[in-house]
Amino acid sequence: MRRTFSGHGASRGNALGRARIRLPHALEVSEEHIRADAVEAELARLHEAIAQVRGELRGLRERLHGALAHEVGEFLDLHALLLDDPELLQGLDELIRQGRYSADYALRLHRDRLAAVFQGMDDAYFRSRIEDLDHVVGRLHAALHSHEAELQGVAGEILVTDNVAPSELAQLQSQGVLAVITAGGSMLSHSAILARSLHLPLVVGAPEALQQINDGDVVAVDGAGGHVVVEPNAADLRAYRGRVREERRERKQLHRLRREPTRTVDGVDIRLYANAESREDVAESHALGAAGIGLYRTEFLFLQREGLPDEEEQFHAYRDAVLGMTGRMVTIRTLDLGADKSDRSGLTLPREPNPAMGCRGVRLSLANEDVFVSQLRAILRASGYGPLRILVPMVTERAEILAVAGLITRVARDLRSEGHEIAEHIPLGAMIEVPAAAIALPTFIGAVDFISVGTNDLTQYLLAADRNNEALGELYHPLHPAMMRLLRNVIRTAKARRKPVAVCGEMAGDPAFTALLLALGLEELSLHPGTLLEVRRAIRALDLGHLRAQAPALLRARDRAGIEKWLAAAQP
Amino acid sequence: MRRTFSGHGASRGNALGRARIRLPHALEVSEEHIRADAVEAELARLHEAIAQVRGELRGLRERLHGALAHEVGEFLDLHALLLDDPELLQGLDELIRQGRYSADYALRLHRDRLAAVFQGMDDAYFRSRIEDLDHVVGRLHAALHSHEAELQGVAGEILVTDNVAPSELAQLQSQGVLAVITAGGSMLSHSAILARSLHLPLVVGAPEALQQINDGDVVAVDGAGGHVVVEPNAADLRAYRGRVREERRERKQLHRLRREPTRTVDGVDIRLYANAESREDVAESHALGAAGIGLYRTEFLFLQREGLPDEEEQFHAYRDAVLGMTGRMVTIRTLDLGADKSDRSGLTLPREPNPAMGCRGVRLSLANEDVFVSQLRAILRASGYGPLRILVPMVTERAEILAVAGLITRVARDLRSEGHEIAEHIPLGAMIEVPAAAIALPTFIGAVDFISVGTNDLTQYLLAADRNNEALGELYHPLHPAMMRLLRNVIRTAKARRKPVAVCGEMAGDPAFTALLLALGLEELSLHPGTLLEVRRAIRALDLGHLRAQAPALLRARDRAGIEKWLAAAQP
Repeated sequence: MRRTFSGHGASRGNALGRARIRLPHALEVSEEHIRADAVEAELARLHEAIAQVRGELRGLRERLHGALAHEVGEFLDLHALLLDDPELLQGLDELIRQGRYSADYALRLHRDRLAAVFQGMDDAYFRSRIEDLDHVVGRLHAALHSHEAELQGVAGEILVTDNVAPSELAQLQSQGVLAVITAGGSMLSHSAILARSLHLPLVVGAPEALQQINDGDVVAVDGAGGHVVVEPNAADLRAYRGRVREERRERKQLHRLRREPTRTVDGVDIRLYANAESREDVAESHALGAAGIGLYRTEFLFLQREGLPDEEEQFHAYRDAVLGMTGRMVTIRTLDLGADKSDRSGLTLPREPNPAMGCRGVRLSLANEDVFVSQLRAILRASGYGPLRILVPMVTERAEILAVAGLITRVARDLRSEGHEIAEHIPLGAMIEVPAAAIALPTFIGAVDFISVGTNDLTQYLLAADRNNEALGELYHPLHPAMMRLLRNVIRTAKARRKPVAVCGEMAGDPAFTALLLALGLEELSLHPGTLLEVRRAIRALDLGHLRAQAPALLRARDRAGIEKWLAAAQP
Repeated sequence: MRRTFSGHGASRGNALGRARIRLPHALEVSEEHIRADAVEAELARLHEAIAQVRGELRGLRERLHGALAHEVGEFLDLHALLLDDPELLQGLDELIRQGRYSADYALRLHRDRLAAVFQGMDDAYFRSRIEDLDHVVGRLHAALHSHEAELQGVAGEILVTDNVAPSELAQLQSQGVLAVITAGGSMLSHSAILARSLHLPLVVGAPEALQQINDGDVVAVDGAGGHVVVEPNAADLRAYRGRVREERRERKQLHRLRREPTRTVDGVDIRLYANAESREDVAESHALGAAGIGLYRTEFLFLQREGLPDEEEQFHAYRDAVLGMTGRMVTIRTLDLGADKSDRSGLTLPREPNPAMGCRGVRLSLANEDVFVSQLRAILRASGYGPLRILVPMVTERAEILAVAGLITRVARDLRSEGHEIAEHIPLGAMIEVPAAAIALPTFIGAVDFISVGTNDLTQYLLAADRNNEALGELYHPLHPAMMRLLRNVIRTAKARRKPVAVCGEMAGDPAFTALLLALGLEELSLHPGTLLEVRRAIRALDLGHLRAQAPALLRARDRAGIEKWLAAAQP
């Protein structure tokens, strides 16, 4: 019988398929004892399972590339860390050895013990740690029974579950799952953000889902509206096909924009660069007609490995990016690691009470000069193969830029004396993401060749609002009057000195913000290749002269509502 | 025989006394087993010791007041938390019950086990946790042997040790210890900052101390220069007496300034307000001729207690402050708690990955309206007894100020209808410590009556540099060109709208920065009463007209060195 219900549309797209129910996680294992002479074998079985899960996580990590590595990687790293926790392993060993429990039951006992401690804390952060713990325990349990972890995505199916972890989404999509419906979750969660980058339809906050849908039911999902139809009738199917046709038409239209210029209605060319961190990203960016790579992230070379990547390994990666862009500019950002990112790198990262305001980006690079010099050598060597420039993250003061410039000069001299062919001049740029650097830009603009504004971090520091802290609700949001004023000033300062200036944060990739960025004076954006065509389409509908004339009204807005009103009026 | 050596002068002042050596902490207990029938008695002995230490810590906490409660309280809270850790207690119980160890040996075993885990992490954060752990273990050990904790401060002595915890300093001073010399430590540590507020001479980073000084040696300490003379001769004693005379002369001179106006050389009156959080602070501020209380912290009412303070308890505290200032203005800051402060409060604070950028200040108050309304009721009721105004911390956007103003209107109406006598108008002010609020001040200056700039937090957000993270070295520093520009703009915006503007961060209390703040246009400062007279003396030597004329040069400085050069030239 046909049923319908709605949740929140967290990631748009349409899907029609059979439902696969995954009930809320509970490890049902009954008490089971083993004989003394079976202890060693049971321990071996457990350790084998642990090794297997470790391998699974590593495998998942390696299959990630591009933006995914960035988003999902953090979660996988966390799970890998949990798995390496000596307390977890020791606790399990003791239960098996002394309690003579089966590995399965030991796993359940120890899980419950740890969960009780977390639960006792009774706050949101620890509850989310339980989810992570259960994820790892679930994988271990599956491994003990020699099958893959409990993620039972099947091609052509729609997963219906209580909640989905960001780390699961990529795996589900690669297994061919068409869409996901969750009883819990919010539009602001990491999973929601990730599903949008994956173009995987996702409906969240639909508590009816687990009651209304049975395993095997046919379900039609509208990820934009958050609507779900169970056992659709003929009219539903017609409507579904209509939405799919519309989707396809739109995709085709976008596809045609690959070879079109990024030009406003009044004939001004805007340069669209791509953010990239893999060969695939570079190839896609090239195919989409990006003006170049505006932000090549280098962290992936340093994560999830033993030891540091050597100069040769880095050189090959950077050279591949340069060659892949066939003469278009490639902007390589130096290492942007910190204790808030993974610490599964060859670098020893300190634990910090507020890692987002800690030793990260250029601070970390200048504190580890050997590592930094080896990266600079690799970048400079790649400059022999095509246009390339260097972008420095987390710049706070003039002295840091001078220190980096000094190192580059020294490295260039060394490389030339060793016989390497490197570019005559390699432009040096500063990421503007620390408010002090944005405000004091005039004090060091003369020392850089270009500027790139990282709006994600800039927003969080400017508002003193951690962007990953959901307890803050909508306080973290780039549409703050201070952000408008600061962006305008940064762009003005750069333009007055004829230095190129781009925005490379998430704002750049959201077509909803394009009119605003153009009004503030931007003519360069760097964004995820996945949204490049949408932003190009938005730009081709905008009148730059008109927008610039509206800028004063934008800067007069007293709050977010005022800015949103301006944005609504600015849409063509 | 006379010996001399030097360390870093971390807190000035002179002292002459006998040395008391405290060797680096090591719990020397040999393995000791107990009989099965002694287990229960041993457990009782342990639990009694734990209760005693808990009481000691609580007692220490309660004896703290004023700025100390703020600085030292955090450490005591941490120690109390360690003591309450179920894992610590359970581990000890198990060792005694199952291992039949004496409580002393169990303590040592468990301490070593925990320390090994921390040590294994091999980073600065965990090493500092070991220090805290040892502090608690040391206290427990002492309690097991029925004497006070190992802090052996004796009046008239100079403590020589490897390191000193901030939580020990206040106790040492109250015991009459004259000065402290440590082999390790740095000028930037919390202990150093605290020693300066306590006016307790402290020399740090003097590794020779433990080799050169024997227990009972006579030692002369010069805390300003970091010089130490062991077994001083006649010339040393003359020099010491000379320094003490100079110190006394200076103190007397300062004392005479209590009744003098805070007036510049060219006759402009500057208003010096005091920061306070206790009745003692209020009394001292009044006696020193403060223009009023510029920042009355209310956190102390909420910390280290079960449940929340009720309206009546708060009302009495606020009324006492108003009465204590006999008609001078009292600025009460609403609750500024967050997960980065103690969580030993009646409020449930979430654990956050970056608490400094989390749910704190007005964010927390608006999320706990009941608590906030009860505080506002208490403040408004106190307004019937003398001039009072309300200062809101962590303002980020206009909407927050409007929300607070709305609550105040509602509370005032309720109170009047209940027959309470409250002031006609209670000025509402915003703390400017979030960069977005500083930049977007024009969007909400119309909604407030006054402004107070919190330079400590503003600096850390502006520079994205955690002010408690020693790994960042000198990156956290208020003398950044962006800070100069932002302060100038905030002061200008406020003055253009004729709204009073003050600075209440640590910059305000440091006479080294007074010339700079005056040059930027400030005419109000709020500072710890302990430094009020020194800042008054500094102001009485400055020419405001001259300083203002030099402001453009200050704003042109490109880096900290440039600002320091300006400051050096500005000293009269």
